[in-house]
Amino acid sequence: MMMNAVEAQLAAERVMARCDALAAISESPDNLTRVYLSPEHLRANAQVGEWMAQAGMRVWQDAVGNICGRYEGINNGAPALLLGSHLDTVRNAGRYDGMLGVLTAIETVQWLHENQQRLPLAIEVIGFGDEEGTRFGITLLGSRGITGQWPESWVTYPDGNNITVAQAMADVGLDAGAIHRAARDVSDIAAYLELHIEQGPCLEQAELALGVVTAINGARRLNCRFTGEAGHAGTVPMTHRKDALAAAAEWIVFIEAATREQDPQLVATVGTLSCAPGAVNIIPGEVALSLDVRGPQDLPLERLLSSLLTQGEAIALRRGLSFAEEEYYRISATACNSALQQALGSAVETVQGRTLVLPSGAGHDAIAIAERWPVGMLFVRNARGISHNPAEAVMTGDVALAVRAYLHAVCQLAQRGAS
Amino acid sequence: MMMNAVEAQLAAERVMARCDALAAISESPDNLTRVYLSPEHLRANAQVGEWMAQAGMRVWQDAVGNICGRYEGINNGAPALLLGSHLDTVRNAGRYDGMLGVLTAIETVQWLHENQQRLPLAIEVIGFGDEEGTRFGITLLGSRGITGQWPESWVTYPDGNNITVAQAMADVGLDAGAIHRAARDVSDIAAYLELHIEQGPCLEQAELALGVVTAINGARRLNCRFTGEAGHAGTVPMTHRKDALAAAAEWIVFIEAATREQDPQLVATVGTLSCAPGAVNIIPGEVALSLDVRGPQDLPLERLLSSLLTQGEAIALRRGLSFAEEEYYRISATACNSALQQALGSAVETVQGRTLVLPSGAGHDAIAIAERWPVGMLFVRNARGISHNPAEAVMTGDVALAVRAYLHAVCQLAQRGAS
Repeated sequence: MMMNAVEAQLAAERVMARCDALAAISESPDNLTRVYLSPEHLRANAQVGEWMAQAGMRVWQDAVGNICGRYEGINNGAPALLLGSHLDTVRNAGRYDGMLGVLTAIETVQWLHENQQRLPLAIEVIGFGDEEGTRFGITLLGSRGITGQWPESWVTYPDGNNITVAQAMADVGLDAGAIHRAARDVSDIAAYLELHIEQGPCLEQAELALGVVTAINGARRLNCRFTGEAGHAGTVPMTHRKDALAAAAEWIVFIEAATREQDPQLVATVGTLSCAPGAVNIIPGEVALSLDVRGPQDLPLERLLSSLLTQGEAIALRRGLSFAEEEYYRISATACNSALQQALGSAVETVQGRTLVLPSGAGHDAIAIAERWPVGMLFVRNARGISHNPAEAVMTGDVALAVRAYLHAVCQLAQRGAS
Repeated sequence: MMMNAVEAQLAAERVMARCDALAAISESPDNLTRVYLSPEHLRANAQVGEWMAQAGMRVWQDAVGNICGRYEGINNGAPALLLGSHLDTVRNAGRYDGMLGVLTAIETVQWLHENQQRLPLAIEVIGFGDEEGTRFGITLLGSRGITGQWPESWVTYPDGNNITVAQAMADVGLDAGAIHRAARDVSDIAAYLELHIEQGPCLEQAELALGVVTAINGARRLNCRFTGEAGHAGTVPMTHRKDALAAAAEWIVFIEAATREQDPQLVATVGTLSCAPGAVNIIPGEVALSLDVRGPQDLPLERLLSSLLTQGEAIALRRGLSFAEEEYYRISATACNSALQQALGSAVETVQGRTLVLPSGAGHDAIAIAERWPVGMLFVRNARGISHNPAEAVMTGDVALAVRAYLHAVCQLAQRGAS
């Protein structure tokens, strides 16, 4: 079962038009901002639900506000292949991050529906209500709703106006006491697939529309500090200095080189740095800087982090300074299921001639879903890797290829009864 | 003519007590802050004038508010050896920066007076009203008064309360129209000596109380900027980055190494650095940083600066970034007169066994004076090189050595009829 090129082009054009339509559902007329449990969230759910129904799906909104559609398989009540992504956005967002995955998933069902095809598995499509965490600062609320992994404390989290999650749910007709009802039985779902824009430059650099994700990077974030001795920039000879910025600079150079050398899939970033006292004529006595390291496997990531911190210590020691670090955020790497990777890879090869495998540097709903079900991800090229920005852009031709590959993989997996 | 050790100890104790007394003349009871043309300035002048008179000097306050004392030589009206430093302070200052030089100078005259010694040259002592520039942001107002180098525009400069220099002068009974009267004829003054705390760690490191200054460092200050490309810390591989902070770090490492290597008397400092956008999970797209380079001779300083900027450009080019720099402050190096250095060196050897020569990293009144007269400077060890800070400290024993050496040099120079 293959969508032909004309069908794919029409489907892609519809996806692009629907991305535009969803982008108009925003709390601000000037930019796209749509947060969890807002009036815009419900309006987007209603619109997406309508499209799901047009594609032949039974539609419902679950207990945490995800919009869900189900297209039955050959036999009613079969386990489902779940396709999804999120409908919420960051502030001043692009229009493809999240939405593209929901709308392309609907197209696969639409095609099956129009061609009167039923598969051994049901196909479900889900538009998660919160992935970004824009409103409450906690993330993946939609996907953790269906895995049943909401900590009890979450309902008490306030937004910027001191409205708690529980109150916000009540305001849109949801019941914080019924959150557990969103959770799905493990046996309900055979596997989860997510299509998403890459949010990075790798596909563009490789001149490919599509790639298959191997893993979603684990991450560690640390606050680090070199403490030396402030001094007069004119009176302290170079050899007598305990310059915290010079030490930090030596470390940043090492971080870059060591990360490149260890593994091309690892990344490390110093994104913030501040000097104290911070005057042109004073030798910096203290430098605070952040470190963010990520990689598709936890072990190499830990090895890298450990070697970076060892070197930070060594640099400080050699220079007579001190070095301190504190990890404040950690998320494990999420491996994509290999059978799902293979199915997606073979579908991509079919439509694109060859495939590319790459890790995902950004987080996705699949992180939460992977706690219960096998996950696979398909990436679509986006312009210059720019995301979380109104300049986010994808090409209609790429979306056409994506819809074809997605349908191909879905059919293949559903025929097999999934992985 | 030599002061004996007991005399020197008594003189040093008096200097220390007078530093304490002057430290109490402050606009704040909690810390020492005494700015140009303030009521405290006039009170300090009155107090210092009294001490000058007790040392046998004729005393006057000049047209820009410097307190001046003259001890005649063998013949009345002879050219003077001028000894001085400043009486104004930074905010929350130490009690030795400036004042120590004025008070030790008074001790040399006091000794001559008590021993009824007259020299071929007159000795004049001056307490400059403004060196730091704390109040009006323009510096060396006292010393530029006696060289006659006040630009006309200076009287219109406002302080933080929008009081101009001219108004502030009027408020303390001075006349902005009479500033030129402070200027001294070139022939009035044979040479200028200034004793000052080092404000750096070199004497302490060498375990010496006294050292002779070779030159007051020239300085260049620049604002620099690396511009790369901001990006997602998770999705952009290391090899695809245009990380402005990594480029800046490479440059800072080079600055440190190249400066050390070129000349031990040169110093270069990056004292401020800021990253944009400046978030833990974003690759820095732009880094702004300051560069301060100083050295006792302008030519090596220019050579160093040029090589640093060339390397900044090269690093940016190799990484696909851009580099920009703008010099916003420049002051030439001030060489100390070699005959004065020799006289001071020989005096230091006499009292201390050996001498040390060193450049001055900080600016001093001698910079302005050197435009008209030969200058020499004697440095006194201060604890940990800390200055512009209430923790500024000198040892009484060091001050005793300083007074002996200062008197020795003064007598030697005045006998010779100066350099």
